[in-house]
Amino acid sequence: MRRTLAALAIAGGLIVLRGGALAAPAAAVPVDPATAAAATAAPEQDAEESHGGPVVPVLLGLVVILAAAKLGGELFERFGQPAVLGELIFGVVLGNLALLGIDDFEFLGTNPGLEVLAQLGVIILLFEVGLESDVGEMLAVGWSSLLVACLGVVAPFFLGWGVAAWLLPEEHYLAHVFIGATLCATSVGITARVLADLGKVATREARIVLGAAVIDDVLGLVILAVVAGVIAAANSGGALAWLDVALIVLKAVAFLGGALLAGGWAAPRLFRLAGRLKIRGMLLTVALGVCFLLSWLADLIGLAPIVGAFAAGLILDEVHYRDFRDRGEHKLEELLRPIATFLVPVFFVLMGVRVDLASFGRVEVLGFAAVLTAAAIAGKMICAAGVLERGLDRLSVAVGMVPRGEVGLIFAGFGAQLVLGGERVIVPAVYAAIVIMVIVTTLITPPALKLTLARGERKGR
Amino acid sequence: MRRTLAALAIAGGLIVLRGGALAAPAAAVPVDPATAAAATAAPEQDAEESHGGPVVPVLLGLVVILAAAKLGGELFERFGQPAVLGELIFGVVLGNLALLGIDDFEFLGTNPGLEVLAQLGVIILLFEVGLESDVGEMLAVGWSSLLVACLGVVAPFFLGWGVAAWLLPEEHYLAHVFIGATLCATSVGITARVLADLGKVATREARIVLGAAVIDDVLGLVILAVVAGVIAAANSGGALAWLDVALIVLKAVAFLGGALLAGGWAAPRLFRLAGRLKIRGMLLTVALGVCFLLSWLADLIGLAPIVGAFAAGLILDEVHYRDFRDRGEHKLEELLRPIATFLVPVFFVLMGVRVDLASFGRVEVLGFAAVLTAAAIAGKMICAAGVLERGLDRLSVAVGMVPRGEVGLIFAGFGAQLVLGGERVIVPAVYAAIVIMVIVTTLITPPALKLTLARGERKGR
Repeated sequence: MRRTLAALAIAGGLIVLRGGALAAPAAAVPVDPATAAAATAAPEQDAEESHGGPVVPVLLGLVVILAAAKLGGELFERFGQPAVLGELIFGVVLGNLALLGIDDFEFLGTNPGLEVLAQLGVIILLFEVGLESDVGEMLAVGWSSLLVACLGVVAPFFLGWGVAAWLLPEEHYLAHVFIGATLCATSVGITARVLADLGKVATREARIVLGAAVIDDVLGLVILAVVAGVIAAANSGGALAWLDVALIVLKAVAFLGGALLAGGWAAPRLFRLAGRLKIRGMLLTVALGVCFLLSWLADLIGLAPIVGAFAAGLILDEVHYRDFRDRGEHKLEELLRPIATFLVPVFFVLMGVRVDLASFGRVEVLGFAAVLTAAAIAGKMICAAGVLERGLDRLSVAVGMVPRGEVGLIFAGFGAQLVLGGERVIVPAVYAAIVIMVIVTTLITPPALKLTLARGERKGR
Repeated sequence: MRRTLAALAIAGGLIVLRGGALAAPAAAVPVDPATAAAATAAPEQDAEESHGGPVVPVLLGLVVILAAAKLGGELFERFGQPAVLGELIFGVVLGNLALLGIDDFEFLGTNPGLEVLAQLGVIILLFEVGLESDVGEMLAVGWSSLLVACLGVVAPFFLGWGVAAWLLPEEHYLAHVFIGATLCATSVGITARVLADLGKVATREARIVLGAAVIDDVLGLVILAVVAGVIAAANSGGALAWLDVALIVLKAVAFLGGALLAGGWAAPRLFRLAGRLKIRGMLLTVALGVCFLLSWLADLIGLAPIVGAFAAGLILDEVHYRDFRDRGEHKLEELLRPIATFLVPVFFVLMGVRVDLASFGRVEVLGFAAVLTAAAIAGKMICAAGVLERGLDRLSVAVGMVPRGEVGLIFAGFGAQLVLGGERVIVPAVYAAIVIMVIVTTLITPPALKLTLARGERKGR
């Protein structure tokens, strides 16, 4: 039909923009058709793909992703595995069908609309997880979280550095340092999801891991800044600007403290104010507003948006929105669940889609990748020693810190751009090995965590 | 902080991609850092704006949009107006703050992530509206819908043509024809939302309007194809390819019939199959899957995605998912409501944001715009005569067909690109007048519809 209309269309370039679309080009350009024509000239190039606007490929992508998520989740749950592993694996299959010559799903990994939905999904997930806890409960295990985070950064860092120095002696020592830095990352999304799937978010072990993940994000910020600073200093012959690094840390800590203190003060007042409005849907809207605002502020300060979403969940407390409950609105957790059902799988399936199995085809890097992966896992196992409380399931805490996920890839991508004396700090083979390490640590966590949690439960009884 | 890190960064170009982001550039490019660097080179340009990926501006946009939606909705509801009018007006204010020198919200109207969320919002809205009705009920008022749609196309078309020929005699007659065509559009989103706000979706009047809007979308497709074909024929000296036009209609009708028949057959079977899966969230996921799939197919055939979403709602019937209810899952309508609360206001606020008040500043076009708007309203009033059933509120049906919304803008944008003998068919001044007509018909509908519905109710009693 699009081709038919295209045939009908005049040579001057005619796009049939149909229906419900807010029609970005037409609508965005209001008065002057000359401008309108210019503005629509760009979209014209991909006119064949999407006449209903950017939402059209997103619709197809969502159908595929939701189907893959539920089929994968069901299959793996039947085999006693967390649903998230099924979503990841089915995502990996979708993303690598091109290896079998099927490239219809290539757009899943690159569509910006799906990317936004995936990001909103993981933000909603961490918000939900934050809601199930509060600031007091987090602070009660605060020392353990801090120790777990520090051990989980220091140990993998030196292990990775050592492994790199041992196996890649020909590389610059700063490359060794950066490889170590890559191993520090923790991707809390996977762990949070497994804990949520198994109904374990309210345990003290879960709180320690979540707290440690937040601290780890601050530490990661510092590490990236220091490494970049050292390499910049090595390039320019100057010294590392410690003051700038200190400023970064200060801002991040001030944000977290400020969010918790100011948020704790403002949240009940905001809800009381919102409670005076009579319009429907206020509870959910205010909660989402707080969540998105803190996520945005977190990014502004250099932290991950999900850290802000988690903090938003922490400061919102059921007491604050009792007025709404009395009015007959559903519980906030109940209101969030359908949104999470819709959006969270998008994140995990896409995370799978972006795994490139071709990395494993590079036989020459597999040896280094295997050792690096072992170091990445062993390094985080030391986190078990950071749990100060007695009688807790230390192993599960350590396993919860293992996945590198998207954070590991971000570290690696960061390194891929560092240049020292005109040469790349991270050469392609090393980059491939880091990608393999990220994939393996991410994929083994769900089954491993399920296993250790079951073991901890048996022991606890 | 971003600036600090940027200062730390080496000259070679370093982006700090942080945290939860799936980190499109880094993650999408797996093996070769050289490629990775190339792929990240593009985002680098706007690195100052969004380090956490494309979701960051969306987060800020959502905070602003949700706040505007609820404040606007509350204010207008207090004045006895539908909430959607408040969302539109507050959107208009946000979108035109640049006139006061405040350009911080310019990104709202152009961000593709927000556009996708808005589109999903209106798709969910029409899906919800479709769920409240079924195929049989729609067919019961089918003749009225058909007649209302036809009158609502024919009358504005000739009125618009006549007005244009009278006031713009110097323009080519095909310009007059196209101005008439622009007046045929109907934007059902506004009407559906007002009906939903007032709890009137299940009335027969509402069904007639909704059915007429679907048929109107098919007719709109035909009109655009015919006009484009006539102008192409005039340019090339050939004849209009009627066969192609017939094919377009055939495909659209076949899609709608096919969706209703095949969907009616497949939906219960799909839900029975899905009911065998044990994983949580299946009811919502399958329903969303059906909705997105039909929306995508509708676009594929050249119809608006919302027509597909509405059809999806029609074929899903509570009987189909009784199994899930028995399992203790919430009703589908309840599950959709939080998603709608989140996404629907995004559509209406953005629709307001894209209204360019500067159009009204062009005094020379205001006269023609006023007459054109009057013709646009009067033309749709004739729809009242199309209601065959007795005792119905005919005026509300007619008012429900008045808003041109985004569909009108799409028609206008389409016309702005048509060229006849090297000259534009729609000159800038005419385009501005059409934009004003679209704005006025869209903004007056919510209060007018509320008024006529209240009047109809009094009469009915």
